[in-house]
Amino acid sequence: MTSMPPPEITLRRVAIVGTGLIGTSIAMAASRAGATVTGWDLDPVVLATAAAHSGLGLAASLEAAVADADLVVVATPIAAVAASVTAVLRLAPTALVTDAASVKTAVIDNVRAAVGPEDLARFVPGHPMGGSERSGPEHASASVVDGIVWVLAPTDETDLVRIDALEAWVEGLGARVVRLDPERHDRLVAMVSHLPQVASTSLMGVAATEEADEPDILLLAAGGFRDLTRLAASNPGLWSDILVANRRQVASAIDLFVERLGALREQILGEDTAAVESVFDAAKGARLGLATKPTVRSGVAVWQIEIPDEPGALARITAVVGEGGVNIEDLQIVHSPEGGRGTVHLTVAAPTSDAAGDVLRRAGYDPTRLA
Amino acid sequence: MTSMPPPEITLRRVAIVGTGLIGTSIAMAASRAGATVTGWDLDPVVLATAAAHSGLGLAASLEAAVADADLVVVATPIAAVAASVTAVLRLAPTALVTDAASVKTAVIDNVRAAVGPEDLARFVPGHPMGGSERSGPEHASASVVDGIVWVLAPTDETDLVRIDALEAWVEGLGARVVRLDPERHDRLVAMVSHLPQVASTSLMGVAATEEADEPDILLLAAGGFRDLTRLAASNPGLWSDILVANRRQVASAIDLFVERLGALREQILGEDTAAVESVFDAAKGARLGLATKPTVRSGVAVWQIEIPDEPGALARITAVVGEGGVNIEDLQIVHSPEGGRGTVHLTVAAPTSDAAGDVLRRAGYDPTRLA
Repeated sequence: MTSMPPPEITLRRVAIVGTGLIGTSIAMAASRAGATVTGWDLDPVVLATAAAHSGLGLAASLEAAVADADLVVVATPIAAVAASVTAVLRLAPTALVTDAASVKTAVIDNVRAAVGPEDLARFVPGHPMGGSERSGPEHASASVVDGIVWVLAPTDETDLVRIDALEAWVEGLGARVVRLDPERHDRLVAMVSHLPQVASTSLMGVAATEEADEPDILLLAAGGFRDLTRLAASNPGLWSDILVANRRQVASAIDLFVERLGALREQILGEDTAAVESVFDAAKGARLGLATKPTVRSGVAVWQIEIPDEPGALARITAVVGEGGVNIEDLQIVHSPEGGRGTVHLTVAAPTSDAAGDVLRRAGYDPTRLA
Repeated sequence: MTSMPPPEITLRRVAIVGTGLIGTSIAMAASRAGATVTGWDLDPVVLATAAAHSGLGLAASLEAAVADADLVVVATPIAAVAASVTAVLRLAPTALVTDAASVKTAVIDNVRAAVGPEDLARFVPGHPMGGSERSGPEHASASVVDGIVWVLAPTDETDLVRIDALEAWVEGLGARVVRLDPERHDRLVAMVSHLPQVASTSLMGVAATEEADEPDILLLAAGGFRDLTRLAASNPGLWSDILVANRRQVASAIDLFVERLGALREQILGEDTAAVESVFDAAKGARLGLATKPTVRSGVAVWQIEIPDEPGALARITAVVGEGGVNIEDLQIVHSPEGGRGTVHLTVAAPTSDAAGDVLRRAGYDPTRLA
């Protein structure tokens, strides 16, 4: 007598609720991986554009979209996510439901307040940390998902088998899963994503307010100011919703930042040059260390290569790598703070790392693998 | 009877004191404009490197360098500028003396305390707002000066004829003169240069401290975090001197920033989404306006180009540009705060900008000039 295999969760029929850039990109990655994908969006124009761009099946209603789904991915705007997840859990009583919101505890708390424990067990909160500066389904691409960090932030109530099933499915799309406690996820993104946004906007605010009295101020704004205020041009509606949804963690991150600014202020005013220098030294060390770490788009390898500073030098490197059939994921000309030039950081997908190293060495370069 | 022409100040024999990147770059721009240039540096290796790289005349001593000069440009490290200016005013009793320090009132106060009013009248404080992330005379170039904002910050005691003469000379080098009261200069650079540096270092400090407990934190750090912390890798010794020299203005700028962070914090914690959105709206408008202003890190042009995400795509771009004889100064694959791919920012020397745009368009790209 043979024992029965454990019940398997198959995630072949997928519904996407909210077909903006990220929803449609996930739809396209899922299709590529062999899933049958149906989409729905509150805005019929967005839905029609998504269907035309991606080939996903166009549902007539939310009910129709999720009726037969094994997996429903909710990718609606943050303010609507909890309500969408709740509705889907009710409409599709056996489906695994996940979301793509960039804040987790607020969504989970609202869903928990609205559904019973059996439904809550089927909800696996997620955060695919990809995207694009563009928005809208017309800019979606399966490649948006390639190699990104895709956080799964299950609750105590989440069914373990479903977490494993979703993790396998997400990795099948080409993303890298990182499991984090929801609180911890929210704390970490508050520091490395939400605080930079707040800092950038506030810095731009200081300069813009002064500009009324000092029309020359922005004339003096150099590259550093531009780097720091680039984020200030982000979507205000999107960001106000995210920050309010993650308000406690964002407030704590601001507090840590303000504390540090205050300490540095006192050292500067106290003419304690040595203390200021040591703060800068520590930050410099950490920032140089960051350059050697993979970005959010993990599953990558970083090679450091020295090149001569002359026309065509970069062309030779990229040609060598391209002819080797390796796709360059990212490339940065790195200037050390002490000067120097002609050091390139070349990022490639991890599986092609050895190939990249080989073709570079064969072409006479001496690449060093950083990450 | 004809009237005598007014006495003219000619600035043809130029001495550079401190031949690092900025001093040597000014020397090269001055040579290009027809001046005879002599250099001196406390460090004989730096001086020899500057002479070999730029062709400036190598003086045996500070005295010899400035003896016959019409104009002396002091480009020593900030902590040494006031003493250098004072020494030069004494050694060259008729020369016009200017400096290149990024903080003005501290330098002026120290010079004023050390010299008499006749000498003070010959000192025209300046701040060429160019430079490079590189340092050292071997990276100097006349193009560092091209199109930059060069602040002149005269005092009440400065001789007006000499201000005009220096302004004409600076514009003859290809820079753009902005006259500012020294206090006002220090206030404005505190906000658009020194505060961004402090903010970047403090943000990196927050993340680095948390990293000890949260090793995943930097894994979640996307492009926005990298943008905001790039400055944190700057030279600690240089920056601690600058910040302490401009300490009162820097402290005020930090206060304005912290006040704004605090207000935003309260709006976020108070769930005032509309207020947060309006703060973000204002900052976004100001940031988009900034994109239309010339950048201080002049001498360069930035082109944005969309590229397909496939092996060889970057190779084609760099090959096209290299074959056009244009040297790529910097190249970045730009990822939005949420990720994204396939947009390249290509930085080239300003004089080669049109050539770069032309070769890219001829090769079928649709480049957009950003700066």
